[in-house]
Amino acid sequence: MIDITLPDGSVRAYDSGITAMEVAKDISEGFARNVISAKFNNTTIETSTELTTDGNLVLYTWKDAEGKTAFRHSTSHVLAQALEELYPGVKLSIGPAIEDGFYYDVDLGDETISEKDFPAIEKKMLEIARGKHDFTMRSVSKDEALDKYRTEGNEYKVELIENLEDGTITFCDHDTFTDLCRGGHIPNTSLIKAVKIMSVAGAYWRGNENNPQLTRVYGTSFPKQKELKEYLELLEEAKKRDHRKLGKELQFFTFSQKVGQGLPLWLPKGAALRERLEQFLKKAQKKAGYEMVVTPHIGQKELYVTSGHYEKYGEDSFQPIATPAEGEEFLLKPMNCPHHCEIYNSGPWSYRDLPKRYAEFGTVYRYEQSGELHGLTRVRGFTQDDAHIFCTPDQLDEEFKKVIDLVLYVFGSLGFENFTAQVSVRDLDNPDKYIGDVDNWEKAENAIINAAKDKGLDYVVETGEAAFYGPKLDFMVKDALGRSWQLGTIQVDYNLPERFDLTYKGSDNEMHRPVMIHRAPFGSMERFIAILLEHTAGNFPLWLMPEQAIILSISEKYEKYAEKVLNLLENDEIRALTDHRNETIGKKIREAEMNKTPYIIIVGEQEEENGTISVRKHGGEDLGALTVTKFSEMISEEIKKTLKPFNG
Amino acid sequence: MIDITLPDGSVRAYDSGITAMEVAKDISEGFARNVISAKFNNTTIETSTELTTDGNLVLYTWKDAEGKTAFRHSTSHVLAQALEELYPGVKLSIGPAIEDGFYYDVDLGDETISEKDFPAIEKKMLEIARGKHDFTMRSVSKDEALDKYRTEGNEYKVELIENLEDGTITFCDHDTFTDLCRGGHIPNTSLIKAVKIMSVAGAYWRGNENNPQLTRVYGTSFPKQKELKEYLELLEEAKKRDHRKLGKELQFFTFSQKVGQGLPLWLPKGAALRERLEQFLKKAQKKAGYEMVVTPHIGQKELYVTSGHYEKYGEDSFQPIATPAEGEEFLLKPMNCPHHCEIYNSGPWSYRDLPKRYAEFGTVYRYEQSGELHGLTRVRGFTQDDAHIFCTPDQLDEEFKKVIDLVLYVFGSLGFENFTAQVSVRDLDNPDKYIGDVDNWEKAENAIINAAKDKGLDYVVETGEAAFYGPKLDFMVKDALGRSWQLGTIQVDYNLPERFDLTYKGSDNEMHRPVMIHRAPFGSMERFIAILLEHTAGNFPLWLMPEQAIILSISEKYEKYAEKVLNLLENDEIRALTDHRNETIGKKIREAEMNKTPYIIIVGEQEEENGTISVRKHGGEDLGALTVTKFSEMISEEIKKTLKPFNG
Repeated sequence: MIDITLPDGSVRAYDSGITAMEVAKDISEGFARNVISAKFNNTTIETSTELTTDGNLVLYTWKDAEGKTAFRHSTSHVLAQALEELYPGVKLSIGPAIEDGFYYDVDLGDETISEKDFPAIEKKMLEIARGKHDFTMRSVSKDEALDKYRTEGNEYKVELIENLEDGTITFCDHDTFTDLCRGGHIPNTSLIKAVKIMSVAGAYWRGNENNPQLTRVYGTSFPKQKELKEYLELLEEAKKRDHRKLGKELQFFTFSQKVGQGLPLWLPKGAALRERLEQFLKKAQKKAGYEMVVTPHIGQKELYVTSGHYEKYGEDSFQPIATPAEGEEFLLKPMNCPHHCEIYNSGPWSYRDLPKRYAEFGTVYRYEQSGELHGLTRVRGFTQDDAHIFCTPDQLDEEFKKVIDLVLYVFGSLGFENFTAQVSVRDLDNPDKYIGDVDNWEKAENAIINAAKDKGLDYVVETGEAAFYGPKLDFMVKDALGRSWQLGTIQVDYNLPERFDLTYKGSDNEMHRPVMIHRAPFGSMERFIAILLEHTAGNFPLWLMPEQAIILSISEKYEKYAEKVLNLLENDEIRALTDHRNETIGKKIREAEMNKTPYIIIVGEQEEENGTISVRKHGGEDLGALTVTKFSEMISEEIKKTLKPFNG
Repeated sequence: MIDITLPDGSVRAYDSGITAMEVAKDISEGFARNVISAKFNNTTIETSTELTTDGNLVLYTWKDAEGKTAFRHSTSHVLAQALEELYPGVKLSIGPAIEDGFYYDVDLGDETISEKDFPAIEKKMLEIARGKHDFTMRSVSKDEALDKYRTEGNEYKVELIENLEDGTITFCDHDTFTDLCRGGHIPNTSLIKAVKIMSVAGAYWRGNENNPQLTRVYGTSFPKQKELKEYLELLEEAKKRDHRKLGKELQFFTFSQKVGQGLPLWLPKGAALRERLEQFLKKAQKKAGYEMVVTPHIGQKELYVTSGHYEKYGEDSFQPIATPAEGEEFLLKPMNCPHHCEIYNSGPWSYRDLPKRYAEFGTVYRYEQSGELHGLTRVRGFTQDDAHIFCTPDQLDEEFKKVIDLVLYVFGSLGFENFTAQVSVRDLDNPDKYIGDVDNWEKAENAIINAAKDKGLDYVVETGEAAFYGPKLDFMVKDALGRSWQLGTIQVDYNLPERFDLTYKGSDNEMHRPVMIHRAPFGSMERFIAILLEHTAGNFPLWLMPEQAIILSISEKYEKYAEKVLNLLENDEIRALTDHRNETIGKKIREAEMNKTPYIIIVGEQEEENGTISVRKHGGEDLGALTVTKFSEMISEEIKKTLKPFNG
């Protein structure tokens, strides 16, 4: 008999030799029907693997990331078989699962695969899948394995096997197909109901450009045709919402090779959006008792030696800046915290002065390899909506709650309604990993968990995920396409107050160390705007839109009336503009639609006579004739729905 | 006979051998009485020098900088004589005029001079001055000169003479005193009516720390006792208004050795002031058709090679920033213009799109030696209120006028009422010095002069002062202490449009070069705030004050009423705060006075009963009891007087 422990902590006794799938069936037949892969004692196994020792078993369905990985990995075997059948003589190399799919790198000899070949490959794969073949693993000796691939003349598999130790080598069989494989499959090919070859690309064997170039065939697969269809639609939508594409169309930002890669230049419309977001947060922060500060974008190397950033990032980041005399060395600031610590140190402070909440839209610079740069989400210079709160340990609880309030206010005002939180705490088995007083850690972790509970957050606690300097809370936000983004981080820090020797005089007249909270609701202006663009497809909440309305006159005759309307709207603090260019009204409407302008106002003879405006919503809905007053009220009502005042 | 040309261009014929003073008398006896020094053919001479060739003669009075220099230089001879008489054996070295005075470096042997000795020195100097001694120059041979000082054992003068060529050496005599001197004196010691020894300091001979240390005696002198008194009062006032002192007292900014010299950290109050100034200018700029942009603080070295900045500043500035891979090199940006050119280049533009007016509060970094750093006026990083206007040559006239309007609006709103302008144009004799089309230069210079005339500026045209890339207009502003500051520069640039290959499509469908205007009304936020602090002594125009009013309650009992008043004021957008600390009302008033808070509001029993507030102006004026409404109206009226809306 063996004891099998399940993730909920329950322990079940079975005869040795029971398979993972049999355990699943024992739990529930219904559950077992959905189980597609498993892990035993933290090692990926087959669902058919016989369990012969005590241990922890996790069973995965399609809903789990591990389930999806097994599913896509298994599909790559099916792809390999299809390629062997369609391209006799093809040499296989490796075929892993990746995010949202899989690929297989193959040597096609003189053959090539292009988009027109995809349907035939997909057809063949589905044919194989429908054959209802089990995936089965077997151990082989190194000689046997080498023999198979030497006979086939596949130098790639031979090279892979040569690097493996005898006794650890396994093959996976299904149907007539066999592949060198470590395991981790779904039970049967029949689960694969939908496949799609996405693209082909060149890829050097083992990523080394001195090696032969192979063909990498990218694909994806799903247990239902409907899910594939939805995925492809999502991809299509994501492509349309790609912030790099939208950012260009809406003239928000640009890059210049001369200025440098990863260094965005914000064009007027994008800069206006940034400014509006900054003013929005500044206003809420003022209410919440923050004070703005301004610090330089460089600091002496010594500053970052003190903070520990130099030791951590120094060699992999932008290198020190020498001066023509005096032998000084400066660094581009990778973080704002050391500067804010020095501002705190301009004190002295008493406990009565705390908390100090210093906020800054601080632009920082961090080197990224050019291959890793991506639009605004991965850049070399970005502006953090940074703040550091210096408080007494007793104030931590209250301050943490206040920061959560602010973050939730920001999310709410910007239309992010779907989010979860993660609380990262110490690994109590490794107490030496962490700096700071144990009592304070205890206090801080409790403060965060209490705050999360108190604010009704949907949160998980991750043990051992805390930074060495303190516990933290991260928000994961789901966008309109269901993709998750980490936004908004709140971190407790016991380290920098030590390193910068920060103090305050307590009520006991003794000197004490303040605690520090790092927080950034947006994270960075660049990344946040990118996510907001993809989340809203450029249709921001009305209060944030660069232009809320555009006024078009039917002909030159009504331009004066259009200007009058503009004036009235401006008096009501509505951002509007007129378009008097010598173009057709149709073209102007199309352009306004492309610019995502929320309201298109058209004025002509009738409108002037009646003192009204004809209003059309972005997307085409006709709101008919309205007075300017009525329209202003409508706008103001709509804004109030998303942008509520923050109460600190 | 010789022809003497005067500054007004008139030519007068005289017998050869006439002295400068005789020419002055010939012009007018009254004028001659004020003449104290002269220049002939651009060389400083004595007023007693005999003129023997044709040439240009300039005669100076105390009002001219050259007159003051001669006056102070002459006084340093009197100081030297006084020191010789009071400290027998003193060895003189050099004694030049400096701004606002003069000094003499002397070797006192075992003697020392301290503040208590100053009155005796001053007394002796005035005694000598009253002796009515002429300053007279004579040529001496090198041997004769060396002989005098070798006899006296003065190794400093000997060293100076050894470096001079025989035939060029002159002595100046007055009374019993003789000094090695190149000339440039006032006619007679009797003109010196007021002297003051300011300070003493150590100074190495020839500035080399391996040389002996001498005593530097600083002094100043005036033709009237009253002028000395006024000068000393001004110094006293300037010391009180020193922005480094006020900036600390008002908690506007601080410096940290760890962050680095010359890199100010803006504390909350200073940052709020900056923000208010920025918002003020942003609002006016929006009205004037500017668009904000945001650009990074670094750029590839190549960018500055293209712009020419690297060639000009590269070696003397912050050195390039290497990256850990890819061999890229970046520079901290010394100017924003290259980035804005690249934004323009994200075009294409047609003549209909111009002008483009890109504005940015862009922080730039320029290396300065640590000895040259001074508070906020000489720093290593500063934020320019920068903008670049890209327009057609035909639009230059109009654009220039608009920029002047904006600059005058800024000056007016900030209480700078006393200013002049300088138009810097080409030197037509050196046409090769300048880049760009001659016709365009002609147009631009006329545009600037016309704009200056049109706007009623008090301006001078300085020939040959234009930059190689275009003509410019600079504003010189006088502060409350009568000191002049260069503020607000507007420059035309034909160079960067060439270097960045900027183009627009003209109405002729051909590609053309735009003209660029650089402009910054403040210049830099740091320097401007420093000047504003010294100009206003921290009593900014009411609209700009960090806190416009502070509310003090007579006792705890009235705190609630104080908060109510605060609320009402905040509703009227008045920046106010309450001070409920456990301190006496007297101490709170004193602190509010020190903080320069414009209005101190006191509330107690009577105020609460009557629903009023007692108001006291900064400085002590009692405004008595007012309703909050009345007070708000008063504030609003006061603000309207300086801060008028800008009409673009």
